[in-house]
Amino acid sequence: MLHAIVMAGGAGTRFWPASRAALPKQLLALAGTKTLLEDTIDRLDGLVPPDRTMVVTAARLLAAVRQQLPLVPASGLVGEPCKRDTAPCIGLAALLVSRHDPDATMAVMPSDHVIRPAEKFHEAITLAAEIVAASPGRLVTFGIPPTYPAESFGYIQTGEPIAPPAGTASSAKVHRVASFKEKPAASVARDYLAAGGYLWNAGIFVWKARTILDALAAHEPECLARLEAIAAAWDTSRRDDVFAQEFSAIKGTSIDYAVLEKATDVAVIEAPFSWDDLGGWSAVARQRGVDGAGNTVVGRHLGIDSTGTIVHSDDHHLVVTMGLEDMLVVHTSDATLVAARSHEEAVRKVVAELEKRGWVEYL
Amino acid sequence: MLHAIVMAGGAGTRFWPASRAALPKQLLALAGTKTLLEDTIDRLDGLVPPDRTMVVTAARLLAAVRQQLPLVPASGLVGEPCKRDTAPCIGLAALLVSRHDPDATMAVMPSDHVIRPAEKFHEAITLAAEIVAASPGRLVTFGIPPTYPAESFGYIQTGEPIAPPAGTASSAKVHRVASFKEKPAASVARDYLAAGGYLWNAGIFVWKARTILDALAAHEPECLARLEAIAAAWDTSRRDDVFAQEFSAIKGTSIDYAVLEKATDVAVIEAPFSWDDLGGWSAVARQRGVDGAGNTVVGRHLGIDSTGTIVHSDDHHLVVTMGLEDMLVVHTSDATLVAARSHEEAVRKVVAELEKRGWVEYL
Repeated sequence: MLHAIVMAGGAGTRFWPASRAALPKQLLALAGTKTLLEDTIDRLDGLVPPDRTMVVTAARLLAAVRQQLPLVPASGLVGEPCKRDTAPCIGLAALLVSRHDPDATMAVMPSDHVIRPAEKFHEAITLAAEIVAASPGRLVTFGIPPTYPAESFGYIQTGEPIAPPAGTASSAKVHRVASFKEKPAASVARDYLAAGGYLWNAGIFVWKARTILDALAAHEPECLARLEAIAAAWDTSRRDDVFAQEFSAIKGTSIDYAVLEKATDVAVIEAPFSWDDLGGWSAVARQRGVDGAGNTVVGRHLGIDSTGTIVHSDDHHLVVTMGLEDMLVVHTSDATLVAARSHEEAVRKVVAELEKRGWVEYL
Repeated sequence: MLHAIVMAGGAGTRFWPASRAALPKQLLALAGTKTLLEDTIDRLDGLVPPDRTMVVTAARLLAAVRQQLPLVPASGLVGEPCKRDTAPCIGLAALLVSRHDPDATMAVMPSDHVIRPAEKFHEAITLAAEIVAASPGRLVTFGIPPTYPAESFGYIQTGEPIAPPAGTASSAKVHRVASFKEKPAASVARDYLAAGGYLWNAGIFVWKARTILDALAAHEPECLARLEAIAAAWDTSRRDDVFAQEFSAIKGTSIDYAVLEKATDVAVIEAPFSWDDLGGWSAVARQRGVDGAGNTVVGRHLGIDSTGTIVHSDDHHLVVTMGLEDMLVVHTSDATLVAARSHEEAVRKVVAELEKRGWVEYL
């Protein structure tokens, strides 16, 4: 059976002050009226039922996640006691779903990307599930055709085409993965686009739980042993203690680095859906579009001679802008950010600076 | 005896959203830790006692004014039922002080200017009082040596020098007023500065109550008649009714236009104090100075690559600026203004636009 594993532990410091330690990006309605996490769960409707959906988040976010996802059973919400990147997260999820479904297929996905339309997403995930049904040892990834030489994504170099499974309804292209490339410098990214045959790594995966566990056994045996200890204690009163103790002892590492880059049978599906990882406020503007004056506005705004400006507030707090060009104004109840959009990448610096100053109430 | 008449009815739309209909400029601590009104009253300490100080404000501001000025007796606070410019305000004050002190000398001053130091202000007002003691029919104004060709002030053209009263301690220059000039165009203002002999009209006046009442009788008899009706009812239960009815029936006009421009015996004292009418946020920056990064900050601010920027918030709400140059950020609990300082003059437009949209809760 197909299970969905939604990774919702991200911090999202690029959206400060809208995003906070206690309210990261995936819990915000940045691209529409629903939060990115709600959108991610809604997108599964008709593909995976809520009782086969697992959301893995940080322990301190569990209450907020539960509030946003009333349909996902409490047993499907996992709160990591600390951050250990994607490999431990995915390994634990694989162990937990295997308890009741040893032949489980897992669709693993981030909770903070914008993917549209849901139908094309269903088509692609279904194709991936068909591929692993036919080739159970195969790991399936998703690649996005690059539209610019992004430095902030990993790249997948495609190898030879793989014939689609018999009877599939999807016409999406499938290739073997020739290699994974880490986030490249700008010049390298330009070379990739010029050469062709490179896709952005969307961080979405489909595989048998058993296959990824075998891979972890081969490449990260200590990690897997600790995850197995946690899974063994899962249905006991010792769960929280063992989870905290064993998980914190694991060395954090990404599934890409731990497994995918070393695996021999990896396929990549060229995504038939539109995808945006919403890496900053300009991505929000791209998703929401602009008004007649060229501004992107959430909340109550009065603009006079302002253009190219992103305003994010709420309906009660009025933001007035005058003579702004390509600026960013984010208002929250206790903190306001005003920045040149040229400094968007540096928003993360703010969080570091706040920590340095001990102004922790704004984190 | 010398009485102080402090005019505190201004609206101050240039400081929105810090200033509001219910909290105009003079009630804000724009230039220091005290409000401009508090500073104005403090400045009188040692010159005029609180029981000879009258503050004329708008009726709707009376409670706020009373809160800021615990030392001024309630009988010294006058709340105009509507706005009628300076002539009716000053005429009424002259009638009210004359009731108990028919030979009263009045020092009339705005409540929203920055004047320093108090000693030099005392010296100048004392000199003016000495002048009207020696020449009771004389109206005394104060002129500020212009430092740039301002278009936002009226100008006073000086005439022949007037010898200082015998025994005065002040060495300030005194002239006859040759003429009053309305706010000039830039080119005219430049001509004034090039020619010399022009001063900015500070809107501060010293005269006998009797003298200004005589002038109003000559030039604004209808206005004076209505003011006399109000004064006659002042100590009766009909005060509020008569005040509202008669005052609203008066045609608003400035004391400059109604009297000063027509009077023959007007002197101007060249102010020995520094003066700023605080006409906008840049004046606030001028008064407060800038920090090491070239920004003027009130409240809690974290600036990254920002300069020439004015930030006005409070100690609880954090404002972070990144990459700003010559901007203005004013945060209040329900509205935030972000503007290029080049648009400072247009802040008043915001108030007009809010009225147009019916967003009256922000006025």
